[in-house]
Amino acid sequence: MTDIDPWGDVEIADYGRTMERFGIEPIASVADRLPDNRLVRRGIVFGQRDLETVLDARDRGDPFAVMTGLMPSGVFHFGHLAVLDQARMFQEMGAELTLCVADIEAYATRDIPLDEARELAVEEYLLNYVALGLDLDATDFYFQSEAGNDHLVRSKLFSRYVTQNEFEATYGTAAPGKLASALTQYADILRPQAPENGGPKPTVVPVGIDQDPHVRLTRDVASRYRETAYVKPASTYHRFMRGLQGGKMSSSDPTSYIALTDSVSEAKRKIDAAKTGGRTSVEEHREKGGVIEEDMVFELLAFHLIRDDDELARIRREYESGAMLSGELKEIAKERLEVFLREHHENRKEARPKVEAYLEERTETGFGVDT
Amino acid sequence: MTDIDPWGDVEIADYGRTMERFGIEPIASVADRLPDNRLVRRGIVFGQRDLETVLDARDRGDPFAVMTGLMPSGVFHFGHLAVLDQARMFQEMGAELTLCVADIEAYATRDIPLDEARELAVEEYLLNYVALGLDLDATDFYFQSEAGNDHLVRSKLFSRYVTQNEFEATYGTAAPGKLASALTQYADILRPQAPENGGPKPTVVPVGIDQDPHVRLTRDVASRYRETAYVKPASTYHRFMRGLQGGKMSSSDPTSYIALTDSVSEAKRKIDAAKTGGRTSVEEHREKGGVIEEDMVFELLAFHLIRDDDELARIRREYESGAMLSGELKEIAKERLEVFLREHHENRKEARPKVEAYLEERTETGFGVDT
Repeated sequence: MTDIDPWGDVEIADYGRTMERFGIEPIASVADRLPDNRLVRRGIVFGQRDLETVLDARDRGDPFAVMTGLMPSGVFHFGHLAVLDQARMFQEMGAELTLCVADIEAYATRDIPLDEARELAVEEYLLNYVALGLDLDATDFYFQSEAGNDHLVRSKLFSRYVTQNEFEATYGTAAPGKLASALTQYADILRPQAPENGGPKPTVVPVGIDQDPHVRLTRDVASRYRETAYVKPASTYHRFMRGLQGGKMSSSDPTSYIALTDSVSEAKRKIDAAKTGGRTSVEEHREKGGVIEEDMVFELLAFHLIRDDDELARIRREYESGAMLSGELKEIAKERLEVFLREHHENRKEARPKVEAYLEERTETGFGVDT
Repeated sequence: MTDIDPWGDVEIADYGRTMERFGIEPIASVADRLPDNRLVRRGIVFGQRDLETVLDARDRGDPFAVMTGLMPSGVFHFGHLAVLDQARMFQEMGAELTLCVADIEAYATRDIPLDEARELAVEEYLLNYVALGLDLDATDFYFQSEAGNDHLVRSKLFSRYVTQNEFEATYGTAAPGKLASALTQYADILRPQAPENGGPKPTVVPVGIDQDPHVRLTRDVASRYRETAYVKPASTYHRFMRGLQGGKMSSSDPTSYIALTDSVSEAKRKIDAAKTGGRTSVEEHREKGGVIEEDMVFELLAFHLIRDDDELARIRREYESGAMLSGELKEIAKERLEVFLREHHENRKEARPKVEAYLEERTETGFGVDT
C-alpha cells in the first residue's frame, strides 16, 4: 500500500499522520539553528528529516549541499517558489547548490519530448530562477539527459539495491518508465556526494511531501550501495499552496495559479476571480468577518507577497474582524502582484542574455541525445 | 508466463515449439545466401529471425551490422565460441561489428563488481577474442559502464515503450536490477543504429535462444521509439553445446567445460573424464556401436575441433559402427585439443601487448565509475 504518489495528484489531508508514519520531524525542532526565514516562521516549511546532519556540517565548517530538481512540464508559478526560496536559504548558509532538470523523467512518465522539456526548462525555469537571483555560475545545473556517463551508470548500479517489492510498496507500481525515472532521481539526489563532486557530504533536499518516496528510497540506496560512501540525504517539507479557486493548484489549469510570466492584467483578473473567505453579503461580512482559512488571496499574500509579519498580522486581524472586505484584500494583492511582476519581468529581460550565454558555453562541451 | 529466462539456466528441450511460438525461422530458409559456414552446415546455428534484412543490405551494398555482448561472469570456454564464430562470419561478409561487455548487467544481476568484471572481460574475453583473430580496431568495443552519456540516456528513454506487464510476461519479473539491465541491453542491441553510428541499418544479433527475450523486446522498442528510426534487429540462434558430463555446460562447474585458458594436460584430463556414448563392454560396443547423441566428446569435435565435414562423417561412421571405441574417439579429441590449445596459448601471448595498448589508449579518453 502506498499513500504518496510522486507522479500523481494526491492531496495530503493529514500531514501529521504522514509525518509520524515516515519519520518526519517538525521543523520547529531545528528552527533556532536556521537563519530567520519567512517560510519557516509561517509554518509553510513544516517538517524535516535529518536536517541536523546539514546544520552540524555548517557549524563545523564542513562542506554540505542542497539539491533540488524541477520537472519541466508546465509554466513556473507561485506554487513553485517555496522550493527555490529554501534552496537559496541553504545556499546563503554556505551549501553547494545542485539543480537538476528532470527531462528524462518528463519524457518517461509524462510523454514530454526532450527538446520541448529543454525549451520549457529554459523559458519557464532558468529565466525565472536567474531573474529571482539564482547565480548559475555558483550552481551545478544540469539536465538529466546530459548528466554524464558516470552519473547515469551509477543510477543503473543503484538498481541492485532496491527490490521490486520495495518499489511497488513505495510507488504502487514497477512500471519501467517510473522505475527508470526513480533510479535516475536517486543518482540526482546523491550527485553532490559523487566522487567527482568531492565525495560524501550532508545534503538537504527541499521537497513537497509527495516527493518523499524518492527521498526515502534514496536513503535506502545511499546506505546499501557498496562502491562508495554516501551520507543519507536530509529533507525539508513545505505545504502546498492551494489553487486560486480552492483545491489543488495545477499546472494544467491556468485559473488555479499565477505564473511568473503572466501579464499584470492577466494576474489581476485571476485575483478578481479567486475564491475568498468573504461572506455572502457585506452586512454578514462586517458582522462575522472573513474566513481566512478559505481565502486563497490571503494564502498568496501569506506564502509570498507580504514579507513583513506585522503587516500580515494586521491584514489578518482586519479581515477576520470584518473591517476589511474581500474586495479590499484583493486590491492589496493586486497592488503587490503588480509591483512583484513588473520588477520580475524586468529582471527576466536582464536574465535572458545571461542564460543564453551560459547555455551556449555548455553546448560547446555538451551532449545532445536525439534532438 | 515466461518460457525463457535470460538470467536463468533454462534448458530448451524443444527448439521446434519455441521457434514456432516466437516466430523464429529455420536457418535453412536463408542458408544459400550465407557464406559456407561449419556451424550453419552442421545445424548448430539452427534458426533466424529477419535475417533477410541483413542479407538484402549486403546484396545492395548498404551498411549492415552485427552486434554481440558478453557477460563477464566466468571463464571463456568452448561453449562461447559459437557466438564469436558467427560474429566473425558476418564481419567477413562486410558487417560492422559491435562488441559490448555487459558489466552493468553483471553488477546488477550477478553481484559482480565493475573492476572484477573488467579484469574478467580483459583476461577471459578480450585476450581470447584477439587470439582468435578479432581485430579490435575494426570493432566498436565498449563496456556498458563506459557506453557514454547518449547511449545511457537512450536506454532510459526506452523505458517509456515497455509496460510492466510486457516485462513481467517476457522475463517473469520486473525486479529493478533486471529491468535496468534489460533497458541497457536494448540500447546495446540498437547501438549500431544510433545517430552517432550512422543511423538505421539492418543489424543481426547472434544469440543463444535464452537471450531471445531481449531481442524480442528490443524489436518492440525499436518499432515504438519516436525520436529516431530503427530497423528491428534480426537474430540467429545456435544450439548450446552440452557439458562434458552431459547436461548443461556451466561456467560454475569447471568439469563441464574446457576453457580456452585450460592447460593442455588439464584439458586432456577433462576429456578422459567426459561422458561418452560408449557401451559397457568392448564386446557390446563392437556389436551395437557407440551412441553418438550421448557422446560429449563427439559433440566437442562436431562443434569446433573438426573442421572437415568428410572427416567428421568418417569418425561418426566408425564410431556408430563399433569399429571405433570411446577411448579412440577421446584420443582424437585430445590430439586436436592439444594442437588447438597450444596454438591458442601462443596467440594469447601475442595478443596481450595489443590488448594492453588498446586499453591504455581508451583509458586516456575514457571513464571510470567508482572503481
